[in-house]
Amino acid sequence: MAACIFCKIIKGEIPSMKLFESEKIFAFLDISPLSKGHSLIIPKYHGAKLHDIPDDQLHEILPVAKKIAIAVGAEDYNILQNNGRIAHQLVDHVHFHMIPKPNDTEGLGIGWPAEPADKAQLSKLLEEIKAKM
Amino acid sequence: MAACIFCKIIKGEIPSMKLFESEKIFAFLDISPLSKGHSLIIPKYHGAKLHDIPDDQLHEILPVAKKIAIAVGAEDYNILQNNGRIAHQLVDHVHFHMIPKPNDTEGLGIGWPAEPADKAQLSKLLEEIKAKM
Repeated sequence: MAACIFCKIIKGEIPSMKLFESEKIFAFLDISPLSKGHSLIIPKYHGAKLHDIPDDQLHEILPVAKKIAIAVGAEDYNILQNNGRIAHQLVDHVHFHMIPKPNDTEGLGIGWPAEPADKAQLSKLLEEIKAKM
Repeated sequence: MAACIFCKIIKGEIPSMKLFESEKIFAFLDISPLSKGHSLIIPKYHGAKLHDIPDDQLHEILPVAKKIAIAVGAEDYNILQNNGRIAHQLVDHVHFHMIPKPNDTEGLGIGWPAEPADKAQLSKLLEEIKAKM
């Protein structure tokens, strides 16, 4: 994708704070970090959303995120991947955030509006989803 | 881990809304969903945090999350994995959330307290992290 900023970073056409590169994966520091060590792990394969990426391009993502978390020395952290503007995705190339959570104010803020679920409705939904898998 | 609620779910000692099971992975509906289709994907291997899980137990996680997102019909969604109480982890067995984001009020709420970063400091940090990888 000629216009994709992350594809340009992968190709080296835009400089980045590169942490890791393999055949399928690229990782770099986020330059607008939520906390010290905030990193991005991306597949080189271009796709906007997780469901656009072939499985074999995804296998290495979490091992690399883990490797970076260990190198950063993060004890508490969030792994986050957003799909869609409403879900806080700003760049349309799949990217996983590794965001250290050193204290209450830095790192990812999480809102958790859980609702009590109706068990019968959940069971019905389960069958609907399973039928499509 | 005898006391781990997710290990009990994997063994079938506690019932769950099971969506998927393979040799290494188990997935089920969250019974306190943030939105319709909110699911959990977990490695069968017990570990509290991402960095406790061997790489080969992680490869299948994202392909399964993707498979469920497609079956749910989620267009917009977040993939989230929390490490540590301060990072909103409630069960000490690694779990990945697939949380559909159908509208502003349902699904994951995200707070993004980004700070402008000092480029020289970032470059220094980059070298520090790379030295540990």
